[in-house]
Amino acid sequence: MGSGLVRVLSENQEQIRRKVGIPVRLARIADLDITTDRGESVDPSILTTDAKTLLTDPEIDVVVELIGGDEPAKSFMLEAIRNKKHVVTANKALLAKSGEEIFAEAHKHGVGIGYEASVGGAIPIIRSLREGMAANKIVSIYGIVNGTANYILSRMTHEGSQFETVLKEAQDQGYAEADPSFDIEGIDSAHKIAILAMLAFGTQIDFDQVYTEGITKVAPLDILYAKEFGYRIKLLAVAKNSDGQIEIWVHPTMVNEDNPIAKVEGTLNAIEVIGDMAGESMLIGRGAGSLPTASAVAADVIEIGRNMMTGGINRLSPFSYLPKERKTIPVRPMDDLSCRYYLRFQLLDKPGVLSQLSGILGDHSISIESVIQKGRQENEPVPVVIMTHVTQERNLKEAIQKVDRLETVTDETVIIRVDD
Amino acid sequence: MGSGLVRVLSENQEQIRRKVGIPVRLARIADLDITTDRGESVDPSILTTDAKTLLTDPEIDVVVELIGGDEPAKSFMLEAIRNKKHVVTANKALLAKSGEEIFAEAHKHGVGIGYEASVGGAIPIIRSLREGMAANKIVSIYGIVNGTANYILSRMTHEGSQFETVLKEAQDQGYAEADPSFDIEGIDSAHKIAILAMLAFGTQIDFDQVYTEGITKVAPLDILYAKEFGYRIKLLAVAKNSDGQIEIWVHPTMVNEDNPIAKVEGTLNAIEVIGDMAGESMLIGRGAGSLPTASAVAADVIEIGRNMMTGGINRLSPFSYLPKERKTIPVRPMDDLSCRYYLRFQLLDKPGVLSQLSGILGDHSISIESVIQKGRQENEPVPVVIMTHVTQERNLKEAIQKVDRLETVTDETVIIRVDD
Repeated sequence: MGSGLVRVLSENQEQIRRKVGIPVRLARIADLDITTDRGESVDPSILTTDAKTLLTDPEIDVVVELIGGDEPAKSFMLEAIRNKKHVVTANKALLAKSGEEIFAEAHKHGVGIGYEASVGGAIPIIRSLREGMAANKIVSIYGIVNGTANYILSRMTHEGSQFETVLKEAQDQGYAEADPSFDIEGIDSAHKIAILAMLAFGTQIDFDQVYTEGITKVAPLDILYAKEFGYRIKLLAVAKNSDGQIEIWVHPTMVNEDNPIAKVEGTLNAIEVIGDMAGESMLIGRGAGSLPTASAVAADVIEIGRNMMTGGINRLSPFSYLPKERKTIPVRPMDDLSCRYYLRFQLLDKPGVLSQLSGILGDHSISIESVIQKGRQENEPVPVVIMTHVTQERNLKEAIQKVDRLETVTDETVIIRVDD
Repeated sequence: MGSGLVRVLSENQEQIRRKVGIPVRLARIADLDITTDRGESVDPSILTTDAKTLLTDPEIDVVVELIGGDEPAKSFMLEAIRNKKHVVTANKALLAKSGEEIFAEAHKHGVGIGYEASVGGAIPIIRSLREGMAANKIVSIYGIVNGTANYILSRMTHEGSQFETVLKEAQDQGYAEADPSFDIEGIDSAHKIAILAMLAFGTQIDFDQVYTEGITKVAPLDILYAKEFGYRIKLLAVAKNSDGQIEIWVHPTMVNEDNPIAKVEGTLNAIEVIGDMAGESMLIGRGAGSLPTASAVAADVIEIGRNMMTGGINRLSPFSYLPKERKTIPVRPMDDLSCRYYLRFQLLDKPGVLSQLSGILGDHSISIESVIQKGRQENEPVPVVIMTHVTQERNLKEAIQKVDRLETVTDETVIIRVDD
């Protein structure tokens, strides 16, 4: 990401100067490793391994933090702010947890904060929510905000391959990191939707309250069944504001194949926002990658440059609502949500098994929309797929706990929520 | 649009105040007709038929112009600016022709100009180009920017109906205006793409240089053939910057059915922007309608409010590049462009006709990719459809002129450009 920013600022230096009025100059670069060739030509005299020297350098107006994670990123950022330096960051993990604290510090010291690159890469989603839709009450945000997970699901869908196989290949091709857990476990998506919800709804979100489930258990068989029902499986990150509560979650979701978001393939990100006045808008673009992310970081640096030139620093609150106007809106417990469910049971093919199963579902007020049972092998477990009508999560979980204790059920039941 | 703005500012007054810090208050409304009930409750004392009183009222900070067209909109806007009032407008026709003049006047008098609502309704395309992609050289802009034309083409595609039938119904349903010529002749789209090109490329565009062709000649038969070839017909507005020239046009275009823009249906607008760093992004949303447009107008009013509070007025140039940094980039003549062409000839079914036709094409270096001729009725003209390889517009036009003069050709040849 750092080398991408070096490239954007040098290749488009002239374009940027013609818009801002003054050149945006890369003053210093701090990195633990300043010897590896990263393919961009940089004056070696601006390189340092001591980040602290940047935070106090009087020649520096804007500090760009591209370290990621909690520490030392957070301490560096806070020190930069206290030294009256404007800060631009792509650090979603940190902002999801400490965004309010950092923004309050920036407000106190009168410096600007840019974080467009933290969500959706090159997609200008922060600006769109904060400024383009400023006159709206935001109703909901639906998004594919992790390109790695979307790439894996897209390939599984087109090739029928296993999760592990595709992940391995994605790692070899550089589409997935060596430690892919944040991407495939949904944590990265949860960071991003937490940031968007705090911005859109003017409330603090306790990150632990974001229900988070990744894609590691999605099987090719479930993708096939989803297709039969007319759905695609996507890792959705969703936040809604209704009836005085926030619904916020990340999980694999069956999305109707006619929904435009179902057609967003590969590493692309897509975010649909519904505003009470604007109606629905969808933004699709490059959610990751060195240059798209650097494009967003540079946009924030440019904005700060423009603000510095005209006195517009602090012209808006980073999370849109002014700090004193933020209100706590409670998060609705996951158990209270309702949707249709796709359930895949692995059952021993014995008489009475299906009736036992459907009895338990009925006892928990779960009504069945359709059942698919294909093929049968004596003494071998067979998959039985059920699509339920709209059911409350609490009931569903209780029922499945009972089902999974039956002797005729050989594996943990696969549960995928359906979004209509 | 006016009543939509009244509703947005009253219904979301509290949301807006919590973001801006001060209330945004509707001070006066000027309209020729102030007696018709428009469904919004308005204090009658703020209504006037004399717009001039708003332009001089010292209590008014921001003037919103929703009159449309050239005059008196232009005079009102300039007078407001000279009286140091910030201006927000949705007037694409005026900005396409006089944008530079109006923006220069605003710059001179130190007031802000907002025009987000002039292109793409609620889609924040102006902000995205000017700020989100500020670090990019914009390569191209592809868009469906007229909802009425897209609605008509969508219905023709799904129902196989004639243009005139669908237009009539669209007018009855309020999707098309009583005088629909700006929408169906492509002029509205041309206004919008001219504004986007001036903003994206930092150049003046002479509006007469935007090649403009509407959808009135698109026939159900051509939509059917397009489907056979795997295309949809869309009214595209396109601007590209390459090799030191601007390509800019509006015309019905065959778009590959797999292209996401082919799937944008009904009154939705969609704009794809390619930046050299950000890659491709697509923004889809409500391009028209009272509330979506008002959402964009109100966003501009809010931005001006925020700027007034912090001194950030004039923090950026309305057309992105600073006035003195704008450069004239010539528009490439339409004759110099090349693409594949869909041609539908109406021929008398006589021996040798096809050979004569293909002879003329060959003489003009036009090579044929495929030919479809279906059904035949003696002494009746039959449609012959040809898809060409990539051909220069100049050659194509010369050839078709000759073809259309043949005695065996009964109607003017239908020409639809293919975008790959």
